[in-house]
Amino acid sequence: MRIFEETESQVRSYCRGWPALFVRSKDSHVFDEHGKSYLDFFAGAGALNYGHNHPVLKNALLEYLTDDHIVHSLDMYTEAKARFLETFRDVILRPRGLEYRVQFPGPTGTNAVEAALKIARKVTGRTTIARFTNSFHGMTLGSLAVTGNGRKRHGAGVPLEHTLTLPFDQYLDGSTPDLLWLRRLIEDSSSGVGLPAAVIVETVQGEGGINVASPEWLRALSLLCSEHDMLLIVDDVQMGCGRTGPFFSFEESGVVPDVVCLSKSLSGYGLPFAVTLLRPELDIWEPGEHNGTFRGYNPAFVTATAALDEFWRDGILRDTVDRNGSFVDSELRLIADEHADAGATVRGRGLARAVAFEDANIAGAVCRNAFERGLLLETAGSDDEVVKLLPPLTTHREDLDAGLSIVADSVRAARKELA
Amino acid sequence: MRIFEETESQVRSYCRGWPALFVRSKDSHVFDEHGKSYLDFFAGAGALNYGHNHPVLKNALLEYLTDDHIVHSLDMYTEAKARFLETFRDVILRPRGLEYRVQFPGPTGTNAVEAALKIARKVTGRTTIARFTNSFHGMTLGSLAVTGNGRKRHGAGVPLEHTLTLPFDQYLDGSTPDLLWLRRLIEDSSSGVGLPAAVIVETVQGEGGINVASPEWLRALSLLCSEHDMLLIVDDVQMGCGRTGPFFSFEESGVVPDVVCLSKSLSGYGLPFAVTLLRPELDIWEPGEHNGTFRGYNPAFVTATAALDEFWRDGILRDTVDRNGSFVDSELRLIADEHADAGATVRGRGLARAVAFEDANIAGAVCRNAFERGLLLETAGSDDEVVKLLPPLTTHREDLDAGLSIVADSVRAARKELA
Amino acid sequence: MRIFEETESQVRSYCRGWPALFVRSKDSHVFDEHGKSYLDFFAGAGALNYGHNHPVLKNALLEYLTDDHIVHSLDMYTEAKARFLETFRDVILRPRGLEYRVQFPGPTGTNAVEAALKIARKVTGRTTIARFTNSFHGMTLGSLAVTGNGRKRHGAGVPLEHTLTLPFDQYLDGSTPDLLWLRRLIEDSSSGVGLPAAVIVETVQGEGGINVASPEWLRALSLLCSEHDMLLIVDDVQMGCGRTGPFFSFEESGVVPDVVCLSKSLSGYGLPFAVTLLRPELDIWEPGEHNGTFRGYNPAFVTATAALDEFWRDGILRDTVDRNGSFVDSELRLIADEHADAGATVRGRGLARAVAFEDANIAGAVCRNAFERGLLLETAGSDDEVVKLLPPLTTHREDLDAGLSIVADSVRAARKELA
Amino acid sequence: MRIFEETESQVRSYCRGWPALFVRSKDSHVFDEHGKSYLDFFAGAGALNYGHNHPVLKNALLEYLTDDHIVHSLDMYTEAKARFLETFRDVILRPRGLEYRVQFPGPTGTNAVEAALKIARKVTGRTTIARFTNSFHGMTLGSLAVTGNGRKRHGAGVPLEHTLTLPFDQYLDGSTPDLLWLRRLIEDSSSGVGLPAAVIVETVQGEGGINVASPEWLRALSLLCSEHDMLLIVDDVQMGCGRTGPFFSFEESGVVPDVVCLSKSLSGYGLPFAVTLLRPELDIWEPGEHNGTFRGYNPAFVTATAALDEFWRDGILRDTVDRNGSFVDSELRLIADEHADAGATVRGRGLARAVAFEDANIAGAVCRNAFERGLLLETAGSDDEVVKLLPPLTTHREDLDAGLSIVADSVRAARKELA
Repeated sequence: MRIFEETESQVRSYCRGWPALFVRSKDSHVFDEHGKSYLDFFAGAGALNYGHNHPVLKNALLEYLTDDHIVHSLDMYTEAKARFLETFRDVILRPRGLEYRVQFPGPTGTNAVEAALKIARKVTGRTTIARFTNSFHGMTLGSLAVTGNGRKRHGAGVPLEHTLTLPFDQYLDGSTPDLLWLRRLIEDSSSGVGLPAAVIVETVQGEGGINVASPEWLRALSLLCSEHDMLLIVDDVQMGCGRTGPFFSFEESGVVPDVVCLSKSLSGYGLPFAVTLLRPELDIWEPGEHNGTFRGYNPAFVTATAALDEFWRDGILRDTVDRNGSFVDSELRLIADEHADAGATVRGRGLARAVAFEDANIAGAVCRNAFERGLLLETAGSDDEVVKLLPPLTTHREDLDAGLSIVADSVRAARKELA
Repeated sequence: MRIFEETESQVRSYCRGWPALFVRSKDSHVFDEHGKSYLDFFAGAGALNYGHNHPVLKNALLEYLTDDHIVHSLDMYTEAKARFLETFRDVILRPRGLEYRVQFPGPTGTNAVEAALKIARKVTGRTTIARFTNSFHGMTLGSLAVTGNGRKRHGAGVPLEHTLTLPFDQYLDGSTPDLLWLRRLIEDSSSGVGLPAAVIVETVQGEGGINVASPEWLRALSLLCSEHDMLLIVDDVQMGCGRTGPFFSFEESGVVPDVVCLSKSLSGYGLPFAVTLLRPELDIWEPGEHNGTFRGYNPAFVTATAALDEFWRDGILRDTVDRNGSFVDSELRLIADEHADAGATVRGRGLARAVAFEDANIAGAVCRNAFERGLLLETAGSDDEVVKLLPPLTTHREDLDAGLSIVADSVRAARKELA
Repeated sequence: MRIFEETESQVRSYCRGWPALFVRSKDSHVFDEHGKSYLDFFAGAGALNYGHNHPVLKNALLEYLTDDHIVHSLDMYTEAKARFLETFRDVILRPRGLEYRVQFPGPTGTNAVEAALKIARKVTGRTTIARFTNSFHGMTLGSLAVTGNGRKRHGAGVPLEHTLTLPFDQYLDGSTPDLLWLRRLIEDSSSGVGLPAAVIVETVQGEGGINVASPEWLRALSLLCSEHDMLLIVDDVQMGCGRTGPFFSFEESGVVPDVVCLSKSLSGYGLPFAVTLLRPELDIWEPGEHNGTFRGYNPAFVTATAALDEFWRDGILRDTVDRNGSFVDSELRLIADEHADAGATVRGRGLARAVAFEDANIAGAVCRNAFERGLLLETAGSDDEVVKLLPPLTTHREDLDAGLSIVADSVRAARKELA
Repeated sequence: MRIFEETESQVRSYCRGWPALFVRSKDSHVFDEHGKSYLDFFAGAGALNYGHNHPVLKNALLEYLTDDHIVHSLDMYTEAKARFLETFRDVILRPRGLEYRVQFPGPTGTNAVEAALKIARKVTGRTTIARFTNSFHGMTLGSLAVTGNGRKRHGAGVPLEHTLTLPFDQYLDGSTPDLLWLRRLIEDSSSGVGLPAAVIVETVQGEGGINVASPEWLRALSLLCSEHDMLLIVDDVQMGCGRTGPFFSFEESGVVPDVVCLSKSLSGYGLPFAVTLLRPELDIWEPGEHNGTFRGYNPAFVTATAALDEFWRDGILRDTVDRNGSFVDSELRLIADEHADAGATVRGRGLARAVAFEDANIAGAVCRNAFERGLLLETAGSDDEVVKLLPPLTTHREDLDAGLSIVADSVRAARKELA
């Protein structure tokens, strides 16, 4: 591994907690150079909802590449893009009564967010984007301006402006109506805060620590947006593609956002891919006004299409996520009960689950212990005080069971270490 | 094609000039749904320097995917990444006496630029980035702030600040020493312009219209940077990977930038991939300070490694580019001479070549006529007055010849139309 | 008055509500060209706390000018400045146990605020200034950025940044602890809001509608500031110099701000004059780092010194303000009770008093009617829904009585008009 | 003087170079506590063009105050304001064919500039203000953003944005057409610099070192502005009111600015006063959109009116300035010739004159020596390398002579010290 130490930038991060050389992967497992197997409850930070190297997607990809179909095409018309658009329309949009236009903004989540912010500002002619505490939307300057993490914001090296910070659901004391502040700010002409162009929100804050917004709160937010002509942008980069059960994480609430950002698990195979969905009347882009070299990466269209066909033409995956999510929740509650003296609490929805500890050192030690026991887990939250579980949605029940046992053991080990 | 009109955002652009449905591609050709072949002098906007679906790279990619090697790994250690780093070090860096650290900032050029700007600001503690007229560095807010195109800047919807605009080589009247302005600004404590953190430059401005900086100018710029403790960032996203002949476009000048951005042709196969190269003493990132989901896309490591092995272990490709570049130049000069009355002029280096016209309508009509004749060409420049030629570096001489004949015919046809 | 309509800018404002040509003034009265007398409960927007043309101040001023003492001296040392500093130290600072350094930042309130914001940013090395809803701090860009009024902010023509908006005391629902939001923001490293350099606050918001901060709230704010190393800036431009009773409006609360801004009534005679007071350890200015031509206007030093001698060497004025303030309050309560059906409510402290109405049209009509009856009154508040009373502190009881009768009559007349 | 050291902020500046306690002043002289007389070639940094305590202005002021005319009136209509407006129109505007509307933006130069920048942005809907190297426009954030001095800019504590820096006349190598850069920037849609709202310029840069713009350059700038719909703002705060000969410094060039800022000597007596003049069609302010407490300081209206009556109803003062300016120039040239080996050069127009030295230490030593010899002089320029002479325009020839002798002696003494 000297090559990494000698040649790769110090910015590398996950490798520091997981000092192994990974070689192969399949379903919910990755394997290192010595053939050691790791159960993966990290899933590419949510980019591998269907597990590693799913055979159906793999076959579609290999076939496409073998036959010399076009790989890279910017925003030219290609057969693979046509099929993706048809499938996305038929499998995702129409059954849900949604009429979004699909923008290919570049292949990553932050590209999707940057495009969303631009169009919101263009459509409204206003500049401010309202954002929530503990949010995460990406690392390029536009997205970083609406991201909460102080260390990452500091990395910008310039002030991050044109935003308004708001308390996420339950951020204050629990008794305060959290949207009262926003309502007062925008209804008072002398608040000093002009009407935002849009509000950007994650329905479940992943990096923020699996903070779950209630459907009631989301509906109240959506209503406030429509009353005041602010766009509602849902960043579903981590929580979309079934992570919370339904394809879009906002479905449960009944809210219909003006703009939706998708990436991570959209290609289904770990290929860089992202879309920004826009209500048709918002699609006032001029041709090429936002562009990017890799916004027409056809292999990603192919695996994304295969994933939609495989997982979203029926309700099986969604039901599985609901069922397995409940199972994980109940298991985590047992763990939290056992460690109530450490202030352990459980959060989550679908297969985005977490145990939080009062002492962030515990969470760190849990992840370290889990790695030693063959389980990949990461921390989240303002102080990395949350142990986050994002298993592939396709993880078998026995693997979930095995992983949760490791979690339980790791918490016990962590607490013993820190006692 | 109704699916695109009904479902894809209005932001789509290239497809408007090239109304065909592309299906397959090989070497320097792409094929539409009817099997019609197009000679590709666009090359994925410079992302396909080795042509479409090069068999050596294809085999490496298929083998990797077939054997279920790990696809998506963020910044974990993987075998594929190790091999890429070793090969990049051995084939590119060491033979050139370069000691860069390699950062994987996310898979696109704009990610590489955003990381470069961040580290420049972090290292120096200063905020301003000096940039040049007619530059292009990307569409996310940080990169857009250093990009020249007015329409794309307007798309930001917010002021783009913390930059200083400077005249590119030969931007003024030709007799003015272009760097005099920068020198005065930074040496005069009352100029009102504080010392920039860095200067970001393309050695040949691609989107700006194939504007070529002379080696003398680059050296003077580099000297001014080092005298005043400003970092020199070369954005080699479009001109790197051999486009101008050598692997890095700045090699001819002898300048050694502090930071280099690479993307586009780096994977060699059209896969999203980018790196930011940093002088070791600048690599003061904290772990995870800049991150991104798709910064560990292993298939791109694999094809990039194969491309380095195939094309850069000897000087054959470089020599070919030099030779074919001269050939293209001389052919374009014949065309320009024929159309001297339209103010046609020729520019370029290596296989980044262009003919510029006084009337931008001519350039547009040339590209339209070329498409009808089976050649993909795009315009560039402030007013789209430049016809840009970016053939794959591996294009055979007879294909170059054929393409240049189409260019010559297309210019004649364009001028007839507009007469 | 055609000269005004033909020659003065449309920006003129008070003259529109008070269409008279004023010629002379004395004590609490101004007189128009026809000799008509107006009782002045506006007092130069708080700049005439000691009434118009107070004879003691007038004599000092005439004597100074007659004897050809130096008038204009920038920040040179002058006898008049020395006397002012000695008197301010002996009469104001020392008796209150305060050790401020005195900065002469230019002759207006907004100069004093701009200097305060600069030194806060310089001392802390941070950029954000926290400010409150409905605040008013001035019209130059730095002060405007911390001002609430939306129309005035819009006039900036550029985004007003580097600020954090917070709810003023009682701005939310009354049950929410208003400082909870600030505490959460600064104690959570992922809130997305970095630690502000300072908080700027008016203890009673004048332009905002005579919104009174409770002493408890001010103490909690001060404590939060000191816990987190944020400076507390009190903008006492309108509420200082005895408007609320004591010389500084914050004296009642026991809070000792880090920085205090004074202007308006500081010269006592309507002469432009302002100071910024700094705790000694904050006085790290470089010589001339903030300057301005009229920061050494000696006639203002002279009248300010005379005013301190006349009014602040004993407690008589303060007692008068307390007593008369209570009287005005009780009279206004009678009016509000009479108009409870119009949602009339009473606010204030000292001789900064107000009646607010649910319907802003009432407040406007009250001021119009009062003018017709010979009383100058202005509206305040987000929607100009508040009738503001700022009589000179030296107003005789019979004048207060007369003015309040006009207020009572004017409210009745206004409501009849609008019924 | 201990009171200053113990109580006044460290920001004090002029007093450090002139350690005397000033008490009285008359014409071109000031007197310290010991009765020592100083010849004043500083003139309140240009605020005392008519000398100290001119008897005609003094009488008008004393009479106004004695009779209890109204002193402070914000933007109410007063007799004193009416008279000022009539006189300004009749004596200044009409004879020059100018039709400006007069805005009272607050009593200092920086208020006038802030108002000018606001209206330029409001009228054009654009944000960028173009400014020149070595400019000085004021210390509040809006004005500071268009000011060159690096130390003062640093004092802002926040980035100063929304500006474009341009080379002042002769800033580059003398052979470069200085406006070429601006023309290229605004005519090239991909320069990366959008069209500015306005250009703000001093015709002679005072703080910048008495840098004189040629009439040709001003005309070319004006033409470029009108061709491209940018407003031309002349900041005549220091150079107006006759400093360069005519009332407005731009008269000689024939240029008619869209907006003019006046302050400093406008009141004629050192009283804080400023106006912003607007072409009538630009006067689209909403009432109160820009305001300020001291924008109706009637004593300043009175002395300003008296000054216009006294000095500008005929051409005597203008002729005197021309004649005396030439005299000063020729005397300074003798000095410069004597010190050609120190790179001494002479600059200026009217009675704004300067000698510049290569070594800034010389300039500092000249001013110190001059003070010791009873002459007040300040330095200017990027490095304080310029000795600036701003005598009152009414200085008698024998005083000019005496002062210039002291300058000559002081230069010799300075050079001896530093030899």
